[in-house]
Amino acid sequence: MKPVTLTTDFGVRDPYVAAMKGVLHSRCPQISIVDLTHEIAPQDVMEAALFLAAAALWFPAGTTHVVVVDPGVGAGRKPMAAALGGLLFVAPDNGVLSLLAGRMDGMTAFEIANPACMQASVSATFHGRDIFAPAAAALIQGMPLAEVGPPIKAPVELGIPKPSAAEGCVRGEIVHIDHFGNAISNVPRRILPEGVHPVIEAAGLSLPLLRTYSDAAPGKPLALFGSSGFIEIAVNHGSAEHRLGLKRGNSIEAFWERK
Amino acid sequence: MKPVTLTTDFGVRDPYVAAMKGVLHSRCPQISIVDLTHEIAPQDVMEAALFLAAAALWFPAGTTHVVVVDPGVGAGRKPMAAALGGLLFVAPDNGVLSLLAGRMDGMTAFEIANPACMQASVSATFHGRDIFAPAAAALIQGMPLAEVGPPIKAPVELGIPKPSAAEGCVRGEIVHIDHFGNAISNVPRRILPEGVHPVIEAAGLSLPLLRTYSDAAPGKPLALFGSSGFIEIAVNHGSAEHRLGLKRGNSIEAFWERK
Amino acid sequence: MKPVTLTTDFGVRDPYVAAMKGVLHSRCPQISIVDLTHEIAPQDVMEAALFLAAAALWFPAGTTHVVVVDPGVGAGRKPMAAALGGLLFVAPDNGVLSLLAGRMDGMTAFEIANPACMQASVSATFHGRDIFAPAAAALIQGMPLAEVGPPIKAPVELGIPKPSAAEGCVRGEIVHIDHFGNAISNVPRRILPEGVHPVIEAAGLSLPLLRTYSDAAPGKPLALFGSSGFIEIAVNHGSAEHRLGLKRGNSIEAFWERK
Repeated sequence: MKPVTLTTDFGVRDPYVAAMKGVLHSRCPQISIVDLTHEIAPQDVMEAALFLAAAALWFPAGTTHVVVVDPGVGAGRKPMAAALGGLLFVAPDNGVLSLLAGRMDGMTAFEIANPACMQASVSATFHGRDIFAPAAAALIQGMPLAEVGPPIKAPVELGIPKPSAAEGCVRGEIVHIDHFGNAISNVPRRILPEGVHPVIEAAGLSLPLLRTYSDAAPGKPLALFGSSGFIEIAVNHGSAEHRLGLKRGNSIEAFWERK
Repeated sequence: MKPVTLTTDFGVRDPYVAAMKGVLHSRCPQISIVDLTHEIAPQDVMEAALFLAAAALWFPAGTTHVVVVDPGVGAGRKPMAAALGGLLFVAPDNGVLSLLAGRMDGMTAFEIANPACMQASVSATFHGRDIFAPAAAALIQGMPLAEVGPPIKAPVELGIPKPSAAEGCVRGEIVHIDHFGNAISNVPRRILPEGVHPVIEAAGLSLPLLRTYSDAAPGKPLALFGSSGFIEIAVNHGSAEHRLGLKRGNSIEAFWERK
Repeated sequence: MKPVTLTTDFGVRDPYVAAMKGVLHSRCPQISIVDLTHEIAPQDVMEAALFLAAAALWFPAGTTHVVVVDPGVGAGRKPMAAALGGLLFVAPDNGVLSLLAGRMDGMTAFEIANPACMQASVSATFHGRDIFAPAAAALIQGMPLAEVGPPIKAPVELGIPKPSAAEGCVRGEIVHIDHFGNAISNVPRRILPEGVHPVIEAAGLSLPLLRTYSDAAPGKPLALFGSSGFIEIAVNHGSAEHRLGLKRGNSIEAFWERK
């Protein structure tokens, strides 16, 4: 059976993730659940969108990704089921899939409205347990996507900060600080002309663009293309966040000489 | 195969959870292990009891819940295997199942004493690995519950703070602060007369009882019935813990007018 | 299918663990992944080595343990696949398996060099996703270990602090503080003469060596043999780390009278 993954901002100290797993097992006894993360910053839809854009596509076709980062639960936002690149998604329609969709064509999305995709009694505050988990179970057991409810023609899109390119220069910003204190930007490798050797300016420093962390001396800062293809500021054997004070939203620039 | 779940206060930085998973896989090769949480506050039996009361019943009949929050390990407390509502439990007899049992009739409990339910050599400090995991493996593989050892006629019960009701008023207290900073009380929906519209007093404020978080303006406090049916104090898009200073043990009151 | 376990220092807030799980599921659809921990302190090879020495051997023969604590990624260190005691390991050759190997004979190790054990395009910074996960998938699906690449004749060994024994005395040090604040030393039970009753000196105190935590009064410090067989300093119902100020590297001594 294809895996079902969970991505939430619930943490694991509370019973919320456990209740969702219980519902999935109750409705789909042979299910194989894979925890992606429950540590998205509370209610941070942008962080979840970036997480999914980096993680979801590594899974095989037929995987169902369940995403519950849902500050608008109980308000007007629609619960959504979607297909994208051979994968299925169950998530609130709040833009959490939009960075992923921006990289792939042809997301088809439907509002979850079919009562067979919900608990008999739906709470106002916990749609992860009462709508998203039952909907995922229904899809895994073969319900065609279009049966979950009416189409959503224009799913919500997040306003993503985009890098701006000029001659000999690209300006972007830090969009994520990872667990190691690496500061990851929104400047992709492909935006730079081929063959140029840029210098990266960030945190008031001019940094060389190297191949890997250990190309800098231990304790020294550097820039490199991270594993998802974006410029990243790091400190070899250290934390760019603590050493350089970098934060989400800080600007970075890549400069290179005219040829 | 029915799932086995794990609920502990071990954290995951140490090898304790890993060792338990190893024992389960060694004794039961086809096992399907589901992590509920390893982040119960260290040695906090009450927190674990509340967690289980909210999470355990969502799992299908035949699930085995293994619970190791065990400040009395190696002292006199008995290791216990129990059946309750179609579910199996393996846990220390320290009250950790008693909130769950308080909501359901007919828990039958046995002391784990059969050597087939233990490692050949049992340490004084890690019964999760040496007793609870082997006992769970034995039950999953078909050992009848009564074979684990002699019956426990009166399992330990926790002293739970209970709400007190008067005319037009119920007094209770905060029993848990969740990951989002929501303050969850011990006052259940069913204790209130039907159709009344109470005002909730907590943290020196009078709060309206609304349907969901977003029925308050962003940043504003509110009260609501949480997803387990208890009155909860929250701040829309924020943390009641940080904004209102609420803690476990703080009192809350619900008032309503006589009809 | 035999389980594959994951031990990393990635945390779970970033998409790194999720990407590895995706690669494993894509290459090996029936895989059963078991999280051991993703909370090894960042880049702390010694902590990971101690973790594995306590956890890995509880798993059944045929288990594949994937370990990614890899401060030298992209530098000269070799990616390694190894067999040890019926278990398979996939890890950087940086000493992370050496405490385990020190307790068992006959580790055979090979450098992962076969392109069938890697992503088509290997990043400079994320070998967990691009080498270790694909190599684990290849082994699980039956690739003989020796086909991953050339033998590694002398895998890297960590310099482990070792206890020193004199007449009536053993000196060692704290090597790990666990989640409960217990301070675990490198002094094993087997180094002490049989039948002696030592007094343990640590943090400026003389502590009795007791059987279990609750043999001390609540709030009182004690020493005991922990669940892996090493002397441990603890506080009953409390934290030795916070109460006594113990840290990794602090010395401890065990004294006993001549017979």
